[in-house]
Amino acid sequence: MTLRFAVLGAGRIGVTHARAIAAVPGATLVAMAEPSEAAATSAAETFGCEIRSIEAIEAAGDVDAVAICTPTDTHADLIERFARAGKAIFCEKPIDLDADRVRAALAVVEDTGATLMVGFNRRFDPDFGALKQTIDAGRIGAVEMVTLTSRDPGPPPAEYIKVSGGIFRDMTIHDFDMARWLLGEPVETVTAQASVLTDPEIGKLGDYDTATVILRTASGRQAVITNSRRATYGYDQRIEVLGSDGAVSAQNHREANIEIADSAGFHSPPLLNFFMSRYTAAYAVEITAFVEAVRDGTPPPTTGEDGLMALLLADAAVLSVAEGRTVRVDELTR
Amino acid sequence: MTLRFAVLGAGRIGVTHARAIAAVPGATLVAMAEPSEAAATSAAETFGCEIRSIEAIEAAGDVDAVAICTPTDTHADLIERFARAGKAIFCEKPIDLDADRVRAALAVVEDTGATLMVGFNRRFDPDFGALKQTIDAGRIGAVEMVTLTSRDPGPPPAEYIKVSGGIFRDMTIHDFDMARWLLGEPVETVTAQASVLTDPEIGKLGDYDTATVILRTASGRQAVITNSRRATYGYDQRIEVLGSDGAVSAQNHREANIEIADSAGFHSPPLLNFFMSRYTAAYAVEITAFVEAVRDGTPPPTTGEDGLMALLLADAAVLSVAEGRTVRVDELTR
Amino acid sequence: MTLRFAVLGAGRIGVTHARAIAAVPGATLVAMAEPSEAAATSAAETFGCEIRSIEAIEAAGDVDAVAICTPTDTHADLIERFARAGKAIFCEKPIDLDADRVRAALAVVEDTGATLMVGFNRRFDPDFGALKQTIDAGRIGAVEMVTLTSRDPGPPPAEYIKVSGGIFRDMTIHDFDMARWLLGEPVETVTAQASVLTDPEIGKLGDYDTATVILRTASGRQAVITNSRRATYGYDQRIEVLGSDGAVSAQNHREANIEIADSAGFHSPPLLNFFMSRYTAAYAVEITAFVEAVRDGTPPPTTGEDGLMALLLADAAVLSVAEGRTVRVDELTR
Amino acid sequence: MTLRFAVLGAGRIGVTHARAIAAVPGATLVAMAEPSEAAATSAAETFGCEIRSIEAIEAAGDVDAVAICTPTDTHADLIERFARAGKAIFCEKPIDLDADRVRAALAVVEDTGATLMVGFNRRFDPDFGALKQTIDAGRIGAVEMVTLTSRDPGPPPAEYIKVSGGIFRDMTIHDFDMARWLLGEPVETVTAQASVLTDPEIGKLGDYDTATVILRTASGRQAVITNSRRATYGYDQRIEVLGSDGAVSAQNHREANIEIADSAGFHSPPLLNFFMSRYTAAYAVEITAFVEAVRDGTPPPTTGEDGLMALLLADAAVLSVAEGRTVRVDELTR
Repeated sequence: MTLRFAVLGAGRIGVTHARAIAAVPGATLVAMAEPSEAAATSAAETFGCEIRSIEAIEAAGDVDAVAICTPTDTHADLIERFARAGKAIFCEKPIDLDADRVRAALAVVEDTGATLMVGFNRRFDPDFGALKQTIDAGRIGAVEMVTLTSRDPGPPPAEYIKVSGGIFRDMTIHDFDMARWLLGEPVETVTAQASVLTDPEIGKLGDYDTATVILRTASGRQAVITNSRRATYGYDQRIEVLGSDGAVSAQNHREANIEIADSAGFHSPPLLNFFMSRYTAAYAVEITAFVEAVRDGTPPPTTGEDGLMALLLADAAVLSVAEGRTVRVDELTR
Repeated sequence: MTLRFAVLGAGRIGVTHARAIAAVPGATLVAMAEPSEAAATSAAETFGCEIRSIEAIEAAGDVDAVAICTPTDTHADLIERFARAGKAIFCEKPIDLDADRVRAALAVVEDTGATLMVGFNRRFDPDFGALKQTIDAGRIGAVEMVTLTSRDPGPPPAEYIKVSGGIFRDMTIHDFDMARWLLGEPVETVTAQASVLTDPEIGKLGDYDTATVILRTASGRQAVITNSRRATYGYDQRIEVLGSDGAVSAQNHREANIEIADSAGFHSPPLLNFFMSRYTAAYAVEITAFVEAVRDGTPPPTTGEDGLMALLLADAAVLSVAEGRTVRVDELTR
Repeated sequence: MTLRFAVLGAGRIGVTHARAIAAVPGATLVAMAEPSEAAATSAAETFGCEIRSIEAIEAAGDVDAVAICTPTDTHADLIERFARAGKAIFCEKPIDLDADRVRAALAVVEDTGATLMVGFNRRFDPDFGALKQTIDAGRIGAVEMVTLTSRDPGPPPAEYIKVSGGIFRDMTIHDFDMARWLLGEPVETVTAQASVLTDPEIGKLGDYDTATVILRTASGRQAVITNSRRATYGYDQRIEVLGSDGAVSAQNHREANIEIADSAGFHSPPLLNFFMSRYTAAYAVEITAFVEAVRDGTPPPTTGEDGLMALLLADAAVLSVAEGRTVRVDELTR
Repeated sequence: MTLRFAVLGAGRIGVTHARAIAAVPGATLVAMAEPSEAAATSAAETFGCEIRSIEAIEAAGDVDAVAICTPTDTHADLIERFARAGKAIFCEKPIDLDADRVRAALAVVEDTGATLMVGFNRRFDPDFGALKQTIDAGRIGAVEMVTLTSRDPGPPPAEYIKVSGGIFRDMTIHDFDMARWLLGEPVETVTAQASVLTDPEIGKLGDYDTATVILRTASGRQAVITNSRRATYGYDQRIEVLGSDGAVSAQNHREANIEIADSAGFHSPPLLNFFMSRYTAAYAVEITAFVEAVRDGTPPPTTGEDGLMALLLADAAVLSVAEGRTVRVDELTR
């Protein structure tokens, strides 16, 4: 059985997923939906697929699954529509910036029995996977402290910041999901600090560019997340997990594995500068995991619930910064 | 001119400083004071110095400076006595576990015009010195985020924990001093979380073994400190500083710079396991800096004020954990 | 224009090139030739291409280029046939194990004006490419010493050894080509030593498993190649180039970029264990370079002459070991 | 018992050994001999020892051992004199540049039963010691290939080159000793190549600045040595040993363990630039080993025979380059 896909949205993330679908055994790309004619035409040529409207895809008998790669504010609606249309759904994160809207969409998913996987691509990175397997194999004992360092090469444009939901919901949300994945226990409290250091414009929009978050579980495990919107040396993505018997860490990826030596010392290239080049392998593994879950009728590895929980941690971080206090997650879930 | 020293206390840190004094040009070790006869005899033989009582050293005409390496609860008294006796004073950290007692001792130092240097040895580590010079040279632009990772190989005995003042005043205090040194701006707020993960006995004593602290300056610079009383792979001491133009980090020291490759992969030795072997060079540089400050009549690089400020940050961290909130440093300094 | 390919041979290297051709823009896979019916069927299904005979491909109007991935002893014949048939030719190394047979085939290529590229995949590895660019940019000054370390995870089966031409013609030949590429001057002398250390069976076949070669140019530049048929830690492929102003090196690729720390020290995974996984990117870049050369009518980056010269260096190494002396390359080219 | 030393020669290596002797438990520095009055006075002040003539030290009842740190052409004479005077002898390498002169001196040592240790400092480097222990513990199986990379930061002055005995006897001699130490079997053949690349003046003096040597044992184990008189990035000293079950390597030492990241990539400091700072720990361990051997009446770890054998390998390398052939060591020992 081959899973027949339609990709909604032919922006850069839509194209990334289309490419992954085209390369994954057991999947085929039937159609894309895209309002921009130029983008639509280009995608259709690249992938040799049809261009269809959302409505046509909803009604199509030759489409088993959709990948939702449209703007964030359309995700929840599309999830509901395609859940009702009986399609398996892969949706880019976040489901929505509002937790109640997410809850409503998840209720539809549950009612319809649809398969929904949320695109937390980092869980599928081969290095992070090897790190997770090291933990799961008991190699470092009980997890005690997770340290996540995520820094973007540079801040996004103001237009993006405005609709992003803020640094915690847009950028830290990936780290919240990774922390949940790695801690092995539910997060109980969120404590955060945030600053504006790279660009005062970001502050004027009510957002931050530099943030630190401490997550804590009931047993006292901690996760520390540090974020910055600016790292001149590239896209900085590191994980370290300390356990009772040892530690495991995943290193950054450089543009090339070379080193130059001269009278000033030793020099190696900067990090891969873009999330799409850094996570190329992760995007392929992610789609494969979705295809396998749909094929086997097993729960997808990243669920709507994962999407909701990461958003709630982001909401708690926003509250923690605003009130200068540690926030219990159950304040937001009661 | 040669600075003539007496070392008070012949425990392991007293012996460390005695060795450094013996090796530093411009300094000589005249005497040690030590209540244990066995330790006193051993030290006298090793260093070829006299054993004298505290009182005799106070009155001695052939002693210019003292190194206070006695138990913490004697530090403040001894500082006051030797300040009044006109000796230059090097005192191990902390001055006292109580901020008011520290203030009283510093008042005596100020009244007498004595030279007082507090032993924050990490500032004198050659690698950390190279890191600081990199920042001061403007190489990474404006400092934005300091990340300090300090983990001990294993927890100290319960007897030590009881009199230590707790993890923040005993262990994190070094990181507080390093953060102050590296941030380049006064710390305005302290936000902390702490847990008991390595040994429940530590919790019964009212202390923690795993802690995370976020420091924040008025302009929004942040320092993140993570501590654990247990790291199976050795004494973990790392610093990373992110700036507007780049970052600089200092790596750990391993037992040997070798790597073994076999069918399981690549293996290198654990970290140096003990603060004295890790910071051997730092202790020598530290005493040299003290000798030079006394000789030149310049302020020592780590002052009594530095000792007080690090203690106040520890007090703020204790309060932050207890109350689940961000604490302003000026709550403790008003 | 799309370059229409037939791949001759559906063994593992044929499949590798077929996959690369299928993924490269501007190329398409029309057919494969393969005597094993099982292999042929599998390949045809995987790539959605036809199975044809060599003769049919020779005569085909819809094939512009062939990739010769058949056993070594067929390469020279096939090059001649397809040169005469007017196809562009990509041929796996070596062209032949006999230099005169190579010369004869290259004469046919020259007469017919055919495009011939020889598959020295390492030149197309992105890391080695970055290393080469570093040299070409003048970053390390004049090249003085090239150090090439190539070690296989384990020896090939005796059946393979018998037809391989020996370690210098089978394994070192890649290093000879890399040395020529990196030295920037013609090699003048070859000095070699070889031993049997991993398996006495290899010695019984008249071959070696451990070898060291020193190449020297007229101006005194040196290249040092060390080879072993056994490295328990994986497929070891390193290059270092020392120049008058500095040095540049390319590191190995590990299975995952993670590090585990425990009481025994720090551990990272072994190297990628197989040349096909290590050089996946190189194979893709290589085919792209061939497609571009054919499309643009430019000389391919690795020519038949490169194939001949690397073979002559191997022949010289064999002679050097046999006679215990430095061999001048012009002894073999006169 | 304390071993009472006289150091002959107060140049930089004499001062290095004097400092090591002063710091080693069980040893004391009684006197130095030095023709330059300025150097003699400086050393006497630094170490608080006497200045005596060679003759006075020969006759002294309060001197048990001498460290010969005078110019090379005096070593053999001094060894003979102090062997006859009944002193234990530590002698800097080389014993002499002429193998027959070395043999004659060793004959006197044997006749008198004197203890003679030759200063091959690298064997005592803690990292190289850890590497050797790894091999001796069977961790990498049987040794198959030793790779030694030794590069000086820059060429010595012409005056030094003239009396140095040439690159093989002056510089490679250390690597010959290390190779003998690590191979675990006697070297049977020497094959070398050498060039002049850094400075034509070196060539005019009949010497080389760039050299590669292959050593081979009877069973086929190989050692590869690469030397250069110029490495802009510092004093490059690396060892790698491949065995049947794995490999072990020792890395270089940098000026500081820091790394700077910026938009151009990652940067770390150059290597320690001078053999004395690189091998500070080795010099201390070396003298300790000598003191222990004398005290315990055990053979010193590096003997006169080791000095002779390393010289013979150098002689064989000279011959190999001159005649363009592999030289059997027994051609020089018959």
